[in-house]
Amino acid sequence: MGKGIIAVDLGGTQIRAARFDHQLNLLQRERALTLAEEGPEAVIQRLKQYIEKVLPPSLSDVAGIGFSSPGPLNPMTGVIIAPPNLPGWRDVPLADIIRSEFGLPVFIGNDANVAALAEASSGAAQGHRHVVYITVSTGIGAGMICDGRLLLGRDGLAAEFGHIPIIIEQDKVSSVELEAAGPAIARRARAALRAGSPSSLSELVADDNGSIDAKAVALAARAGDQLATDVFAHAGRIIGLGIVSILHLFNPEVVVLGGGVSKAGDLLYAPMLDVIRQHVLDEAYLKDLKIAPAALGDDVALVGAAALVATDGGHLDISELDRLF
Amino acid sequence: MGKGIIAVDLGGTQIRAARFDHQLNLLQRERALTLAEEGPEAVIQRLKQYIEKVLPPSLSDVAGIGFSSPGPLNPMTGVIIAPPNLPGWRDVPLADIIRSEFGLPVFIGNDANVAALAEASSGAAQGHRHVVYITVSTGIGAGMICDGRLLLGRDGLAAEFGHIPIIIEQDKVSSVELEAAGPAIARRARAALRAGSPSSLSELVADDNGSIDAKAVALAARAGDQLATDVFAHAGRIIGLGIVSILHLFNPEVVVLGGGVSKAGDLLYAPMLDVIRQHVLDEAYLKDLKIAPAALGDDVALVGAAALVATDGGHLDISELDRLF
Repeated sequence: MGKGIIAVDLGGTQIRAARFDHQLNLLQRERALTLAEEGPEAVIQRLKQYIEKVLPPSLSDVAGIGFSSPGPLNPMTGVIIAPPNLPGWRDVPLADIIRSEFGLPVFIGNDANVAALAEASSGAAQGHRHVVYITVSTGIGAGMICDGRLLLGRDGLAAEFGHIPIIIEQDKVSSVELEAAGPAIARRARAALRAGSPSSLSELVADDNGSIDAKAVALAARAGDQLATDVFAHAGRIIGLGIVSILHLFNPEVVVLGGGVSKAGDLLYAPMLDVIRQHVLDEAYLKDLKIAPAALGDDVALVGAAALVATDGGHLDISELDRLF
Repeated sequence: MGKGIIAVDLGGTQIRAARFDHQLNLLQRERALTLAEEGPEAVIQRLKQYIEKVLPPSLSDVAGIGFSSPGPLNPMTGVIIAPPNLPGWRDVPLADIIRSEFGLPVFIGNDANVAALAEASSGAAQGHRHVVYITVSTGIGAGMICDGRLLLGRDGLAAEFGHIPIIIEQDKVSSVELEAAGPAIARRARAALRAGSPSSLSELVADDNGSIDAKAVALAARAGDQLATDVFAHAGRIIGLGIVSILHLFNPEVVVLGGGVSKAGDLLYAPMLDVIRQHVLDEAYLKDLKIAPAALGDDVALVGAAALVATDGGHLDISELDRLF
């Protein structure tokens, strides 16, 4: 029988630790608040404590510990660089710290890369070798699997879909994230309201301008509000153009869309798909292309962190997930 | 001793065939005019004839035949789809035809992918595992090597750098190629002249508007002409923005620039590097990044076609180039 895997989801709000068996079946899961405001040392103490909770009696039954963590981080060295939602973290050698605590192999991946591995191993991209996973929420991240292997680049900084530059006017350069992530949707709606466009959202503004977020815009759009619909259409078009770049550069089999904003569904998908069809170089890129919502729910980070261990930090072919154990 | 390799460069103007030894040393080279206007059958006949010329006495001493061909083509099936500069070619199963003629393994790659392999095996990107090769001439093509392997995508349609969409105005979508390839440079110069901008190029226009090509614009720019300099600056900025996308998506070690237009040097490089520095997400992408002109000259396609055989059509790691033989 194969060894078990420990997976840890280090988030800005929650820490989750789990034990998987050798076939990536979840055996045990524990969760705690991150309490990031207490700083790195307290959080690392808590991480160790929750890893301890899910460890089997004998460490020799464990293949390794995988982490899903917010970026930027260096997956090659296991150093967390400076995640915006982990205040006080600056060049923390998390892999070294956990490795020396438990004496086990440790692999760390950024949350989008890890989610890509998860969706490819047991989610919407299962069975595919050319996979693009895009998450649209507070930021826009991505993970790419190229011919079965996670794309990392020299220092693990690859797959930053959100930072594809987009020219907005003659010389004004923006990015996919700055135009289409949740905060951009909210900002664009507020700007249109300030400019005097009529909208059901103006009731919220009268109350508190800050209370308009992407979710409120989505609700208004679903109720037929034109301003809100237009704002989502802009975001969808920009994401669509980004995906056109991705199709031409990676020629994938599947594009998986995750993240809170992607749950807006057709509000985002319809303009996005229009732009893709309109600007793709050749029909061949769309033939048999699957564009699908993420299939894994809350456990995506844990499944992906386990898959990260099984693929030796994403360096092995994902077919190893079937073979290794 | 290892086996020799046959390499063929199928171009719109010339056919070249060569024999390499097992260490990619060129042993023999033959060339002929393509005479593409005679149609596929005549050209294929000529290809066979020139392959024959460079074959060693015994076919069992040959590892395989590699082709560099204009795209679009499918490297998985070895079918040439419809190259603009090979009139009459439509879904030609070139790999099958050559395989059944000589009974040898045949590998076909598009010219930009093949050039990327060449530069990585013995050119400006030698010794690197994360390589982006970009060629700027009549079109803009590219080849990517991700962690040692040629990026092909599902059907070999990946790495189309020239077709990254670029928004030029609010809703007008263009592409890197449409804004920065040779014909775009010429077109932009002619448009500026027609709009009445003063330029030394106007002498050429008085003569024959069509005689303004990218080379003429480069010559005028080097002589200090402002219009010509501005036109190259636009092309350089667009290529720079495309490279920013590439840095964020691939996190390469090296970006190699080839193709006729890239020989404009600083006219293109200075605005390109400015844009890269200005819009890159983080200094980490630029640290130790090498941006270099292509090092291989006319033989790039032959060297790359030989490397294609040595890497089993780009599926094997480029480190096999050292190991296999």
